[in-house]
Amino acid sequence: MSPGKTILASKIAKKFADEIQAKAALLARRPKLVGILANPDPAAKQYADWTWKTSESLGFDYQLIQVEKEQLEDQIYKCNIDSSINGIMVYFPVYGDGQDRYLQQCVALEKDVEGLNFRYVSNMYHNIRYLDDTHQKKSILPCTPLAIVKILEYLGVYNPLLNYGDRLYGKTITVVNRSEIVGRPLAALLANDGATVYSVDINDIQTYERGHGLKLKKHDVFECDKSLKECALSSDVIITGVPNDSYKFPTEYVKRGAVVINFAFNKNFNDDVKEKASLYVPSIGKVTIAMLLRNLLRLIDNAPK
Amino acid sequence: MSPGKTILASKIAKKFADEIQAKAALLARRPKLVGILANPDPAAKQYADWTWKTSESLGFDYQLIQVEKEQLEDQIYKCNIDSSINGIMVYFPVYGDGQDRYLQQCVALEKDVEGLNFRYVSNMYHNIRYLDDTHQKKSILPCTPLAIVKILEYLGVYNPLLNYGDRLYGKTITVVNRSEIVGRPLAALLANDGATVYSVDINDIQTYERGHGLKLKKHDVFECDKSLKECALSSDVIITGVPNDSYKFPTEYVKRGAVVINFAFNKNFNDDVKEKASLYVPSIGKVTIAMLLRNLLRLIDNAPK
Repeated sequence: MSPGKTILASKIAKKFADEIQAKAALLARRPKLVGILANPDPAAKQYADWTWKTSESLGFDYQLIQVEKEQLEDQIYKCNIDSSINGIMVYFPVYGDGQDRYLQQCVALEKDVEGLNFRYVSNMYHNIRYLDDTHQKKSILPCTPLAIVKILEYLGVYNPLLNYGDRLYGKTITVVNRSEIVGRPLAALLANDGATVYSVDINDIQTYERGHGLKLKKHDVFECDKSLKECALSSDVIITGVPNDSYKFPTEYVKRGAVVINFAFNKNFNDDVKEKASLYVPSIGKVTIAMLLRNLLRLIDNAPK
Repeated sequence: MSPGKTILASKIAKKFADEIQAKAALLARRPKLVGILANPDPAAKQYADWTWKTSESLGFDYQLIQVEKEQLEDQIYKCNIDSSINGIMVYFPVYGDGQDRYLQQCVALEKDVEGLNFRYVSNMYHNIRYLDDTHQKKSILPCTPLAIVKILEYLGVYNPLLNYGDRLYGKTITVVNRSEIVGRPLAALLANDGATVYSVDINDIQTYERGHGLKLKKHDVFECDKSLKECALSSDVIITGVPNDSYKFPTEYVKRGAVVINFAFNKNFNDDVKEKASLYVPSIGKVTIAMLLRNLLRLIDNAPK
């Protein structure tokens, strides 16, 4: 039997949940998160129910608003100006195309718990960690990539003996997914922290490495001419997010002892991955929800007092 | 023989070209447009060459910058802070996915001749025509939809006897394309001016009509249960933009006397459409380039003096 272990998201989330609950309890008013659901997919409803349950259990108010997709934009703008609401999230996909990206930008910067506003995303890509020059307001990181970073910290992939910002130095990580919501920001975040990242999508493989540009120290991107097999077998960590039931990452591409994380709702690994991986995290949803609430607390910190 | 006519974009563009040239000549310095090409597609290069030729002929400086796609973002940021540059356009698609939409947002608001910044797009959808409360700075409209509006004005579809903002009252228009760059903003613009618009994409048909909401008077959107044939046959205007050589809009769906416009690079109509249409505009590229330069003059007007 392999010495590898499966680590559940609930266990990882617990640590953050305790921190979040303690912080929320110190606030004068219970923070309020609104989830807007304009998507009949039962998976979205289930995710909303989890968010609700977690929010309430940690001392947050949660309100689910269900609307027709044609009313979604108006609903977002209503929530933007409702001062009782601290944070807004929308359960995507709604239209499943460019219109969703437009709608993401409709959420007010000050209430964007998911960190999808262009300002936040652009700061993340440029490794800019504050919204203001005096460093009073922290920028918000997109919550799924942030959850994965926190999971990697928990699993010991980040080395705390190295300086902050260098803690993935020497690590090689393969990320299978290059969506704008998760895969590409994740590759950038990991590269910004010092890793060599192979970013894989259906068309090609790109290498993300931290650049040495001026003050930004943001990542650089190169075309990669290695095969997926070569990239994966040289990787300390493999992270997948392929939204497709029939997709399985080949177990023979996993290096013995690698850390393996799946962030898709679908199961991207066969069970035999446990015989190769040292640590296997089959899903991350609960950590993502914790990060939503953590971002909400940050938004409240950022708000004018 | 049918009494219908084919109207070339060059003829329509001429009127705007004269206006633009006269305005540019009044400026203290020749306005400068930069085009950034990170796309090996010969069609993009050809479009860049047209922009160049038109710009120079109308009294603008044009500079083409060719970069690898990995360097595109850095190049945009360099142009953003170069005070000799008044306007920036990027020849999309580059990645052909969500990353292109991120890159669009990297162009500074003050230099975005294409009108793709979220601020401009959001203003357009909400029928907000200025950037500031004192109405000194006009918002920029996305240039392809704007070109189509100007073409419709030229063709007499807009009725100048009606009040500004109502000049498409009573008109029915079918738009085949619902991209975030052209089809959806175009449907909204036409609905904001009083038309009933059938917005057609591969999945469904939506109806865009001007709403009666509060101060915004923006369009509303409904699912439509009519067939494409019914929608098209009731339409005074049919506008297509299907980027596919094999797609042809069925001529038998065109009402006798309809105005027909194609904005795709591909030919979306068979030649026999001329036997049905009263006015047929087979391509619009030259008007779009004129609108780019018109937007550039507006950006210069908006800039702090």
